[in-house]
Amino acid sequence: MKPLSVTVWNENRHEQRTGETPARIYPLGMHKVIADGLIENLGDLINVRTATLDDSEHGLSQSVIDATDVLLWWGHEFHSDVSDEVVERVFQAVLGGMGLIVLHSGHYSKIFRRLMGTTCSLRWRNNADRELIWTIAPTHPIALGVSDPIVISEQEMYGEFFDIPTPDELIFISSFSGGEVFRSGATWSRGLGKVFYFSPGDQEYPIYYHPEIRKVLANGVIWSKPSRRDKPIDATFKDTDWFLK
Amino acid sequence: MKPLSVTVWNENRHEQRTGETPARIYPLGMHKVIADGLIENLGDLINVRTATLDDSEHGLSQSVIDATDVLLWWGHEFHSDVSDEVVERVFQAVLGGMGLIVLHSGHYSKIFRRLMGTTCSLRWRNNADRELIWTIAPTHPIALGVSDPIVISEQEMYGEFFDIPTPDELIFISSFSGGEVFRSGATWSRGLGKVFYFSPGDQEYPIYYHPEIRKVLANGVIWSKPSRRDKPIDATFKDTDWFLK
Amino acid sequence: MKPLSVTVWNENRHEQRTGETPARIYPLGMHKVIADGLIENLGDLINVRTATLDDSEHGLSQSVIDATDVLLWWGHEFHSDVSDEVVERVFQAVLGGMGLIVLHSGHYSKIFRRLMGTTCSLRWRNNADRELIWTIAPTHPIALGVSDPIVISEQEMYGEFFDIPTPDELIFISSFSGGEVFRSGATWSRGLGKVFYFSPGDQEYPIYYHPEIRKVLANGVIWSKPSRRDKPIDATFKDTDWFLK
Amino acid sequence: MKPLSVTVWNENRHEQRTGETPARIYPLGMHKVIADGLIENLGDLINVRTATLDDSEHGLSQSVIDATDVLLWWGHEFHSDVSDEVVERVFQAVLGGMGLIVLHSGHYSKIFRRLMGTTCSLRWRNNADRELIWTIAPTHPIALGVSDPIVISEQEMYGEFFDIPTPDELIFISSFSGGEVFRSGATWSRGLGKVFYFSPGDQEYPIYYHPEIRKVLANGVIWSKPSRRDKPIDATFKDTDWFLK
Repeated sequence: MKPLSVTVWNENRHEQRTGETPARIYPLGMHKVIADGLIENLGDLINVRTATLDDSEHGLSQSVIDATDVLLWWGHEFHSDVSDEVVERVFQAVLGGMGLIVLHSGHYSKIFRRLMGTTCSLRWRNNADRELIWTIAPTHPIALGVSDPIVISEQEMYGEFFDIPTPDELIFISSFSGGEVFRSGATWSRGLGKVFYFSPGDQEYPIYYHPEIRKVLANGVIWSKPSRRDKPIDATFKDTDWFLK
Repeated sequence: MKPLSVTVWNENRHEQRTGETPARIYPLGMHKVIADGLIENLGDLINVRTATLDDSEHGLSQSVIDATDVLLWWGHEFHSDVSDEVVERVFQAVLGGMGLIVLHSGHYSKIFRRLMGTTCSLRWRNNADRELIWTIAPTHPIALGVSDPIVISEQEMYGEFFDIPTPDELIFISSFSGGEVFRSGATWSRGLGKVFYFSPGDQEYPIYYHPEIRKVLANGVIWSKPSRRDKPIDATFKDTDWFLK
Repeated sequence: MKPLSVTVWNENRHEQRTGETPARIYPLGMHKVIADGLIENLGDLINVRTATLDDSEHGLSQSVIDATDVLLWWGHEFHSDVSDEVVERVFQAVLGGMGLIVLHSGHYSKIFRRLMGTTCSLRWRNNADRELIWTIAPTHPIALGVSDPIVISEQEMYGEFFDIPTPDELIFISSFSGGEVFRSGATWSRGLGKVFYFSPGDQEYPIYYHPEIRKVLANGVIWSKPSRRDKPIDATFKDTDWFLK
Repeated sequence: MKPLSVTVWNENRHEQRTGETPARIYPLGMHKVIADGLIENLGDLINVRTATLDDSEHGLSQSVIDATDVLLWWGHEFHSDVSDEVVERVFQAVLGGMGLIVLHSGHYSKIFRRLMGTTCSLRWRNNADRELIWTIAPTHPIALGVSDPIVISEQEMYGEFFDIPTPDELIFISSFSGGEVFRSGATWSRGLGKVFYFSPGDQEYPIYYHPEIRKVLANGVIWSKPSRRDKPIDATFKDTDWFLK
């Protein structure tokens, strides 16, 4: 099988602020560590590239998008800096079959909100809560090979109500030390594309070094790979008995 | 109970073309006939107003939207003439609890596509197919009191694949003389609002005079009424033990 | 409107053991307190009767079942003492439209397992965990009028994986002091009937005196009332064009 | 990869009646033709055995079931002749991870009704209707590689309302010459197992020779293979912090 082409997109601005926590945890950027985790799990099954907000066209030219099977998306403070043109490009690609994995604060990204059609709002608190990630769909490919629960010793709290459409599949529910719960892993179909949202991953904690988080992301890449890649479906006139011709 | 405030929105341009079929079937506009059907079924339970594309702000000023519990939407050829500002207003209202019923060719309206996050594309043929509307959810409030199937002697064909997100509830499936099938009645939650799509209703046929189609629309109005009306949910910081205070 | 006929069924054996906690909390039986809570919320909208395991036919004769719109079910240690004949009777009634609300340890009852088609297994610990019940479906009729979260200071822990079919609607998710999560409020359609499972309610704690738990149960009664009551649907031969005759 | 172990179960009594249509179409039994179709598509990826009602223990001894990854089930007139013990064995195996594909009139089998918890009733007419099988989930693995629609020139009509729980995934909807529609391909999770129902396949027509029907069944086998195989999940006491130990 031809390797899957995976693109890890990262806002990559937290990591530029010397002396702050994200820069210390992720000196080469979160995208680098996420990419490493995918390679660790999937090796030759994938080719990984990275792209960031400050690259030309955010690193997501039409040719990059056309060549991408699965796109991972991490953004936080600068969602509004992502150009509408690139968002439209990614949107069309998802509808045409590209897989999309939205991470953590990417819940508020333009692309996720556009695909969901809701505010994607949630409750939050950054206070080093312990997060436990429970598996609700034990036979789903994304949940295979990880502990139930996955234990993250310190993480930002994301809590319900999470204003998303009812997921097609609810895979993980998290609890936090403070008692909140969150639908932390969920999937949706959109056109020919598959979307997976996975909430762990705050920039203040070394989440993307966690072997089980890496495993989930690798599972997500395989799960969201295109079954086919096309233009988005478009309305078509059909004469009587067209399917017999 | 205070009457529900219902607004029927119609593009109302087909009906202006003297001598063509829609003008003959709906001389006062489809919105008038749809409104009549709601009153026929719901009487004093509702107050109905109508609004059209060519009204100022398309008849959907902020105050009209604020005062609307349930909005019905019929559009076809001039989706792009609907201003983005009004679409945004309706979108925010739905997320804040306003019910929305999207009719027939409204599948391609800006507001429906925005709420769905897909192309909302479908196959079609205008050739007076007989449509049979089968009930798949026999206890759903929207399906109560109508025949199974509802028979429409002549109607435009709308066929699968209909590029929508998996419905929260699939209520009706239609077949057409030509053999095509269509998910003709389906619902989705979006934020605090409820959305119902119902496909019968082409401008070339007197669909909105059909007593059972009117009954479905009336059921839909009651079903989609707000449980509460608010601003769309917005992300909130929450201190530890906030819910105990 | 004719009052709904509600039957509260209770195993009622814990409460018979003088000197133990359930007898102290519920001296007249849990069914009495559950019934009181429904009356407190719904008043004249309902007529409530109670029935227990040790009544003749468990208090669920065919005539009682025929006259019941919504049945609530609490059982725990003696599921196997419920006769298969009565289970079959309840099963047929649900398929024919009777609402069913299954409470707490009723997850392992014969009737719930039969309707679900799974083990209905879960993790548990009786150690006075605090339970927080979070609303995931803020506009669902069952969730209206209660806090988000509902706080129960002490309760048995029920944790995932809860081996149930994917709910049609997931309304509540609970967390517990120990960090576990649970899909604590969920619904399913079965035939013409509606089923609501709600997990709070261990016999060792005074859960059914909690005003918000009572409110949820009252909401559940209204939600699960029959849209019609019939025999279960049965396969039928249909000649060509039967729907035109 | 070790080949999947597939067992095709067939009632195999229609085929024994010399001179009748099923005996002419399927002289060696439907199971033989179904098995051939799987081998045609999957070759060395599977090992196929067959089993029939009149075999000892219906050919489904505990050791056969234990060794089966995916079971296909065709039954019709003699559902009641299947022993409850074997049904229980298959039920436990599905909950423990075995895939199950239920075919056509198997909708009324003991095992399917037990897994669904509904009547599984439907409308029907055996009058050589043309069936068109439309794909509603174009990226689902079960729908890959077949025409949209699949055309079956003559087949028994199965029509809605089909009294099943809401499917986890609705893959195919069929229409028939007479105008009826049917959810002809649908999936459900039950415990650790996956269930796929696929309605084409009446004994009076050579459906299981149709290359695209064979392709769907082969896709179904791959889709429903166990992610793991275990005993059904069973309730477990969990001490505080058990997941940290």
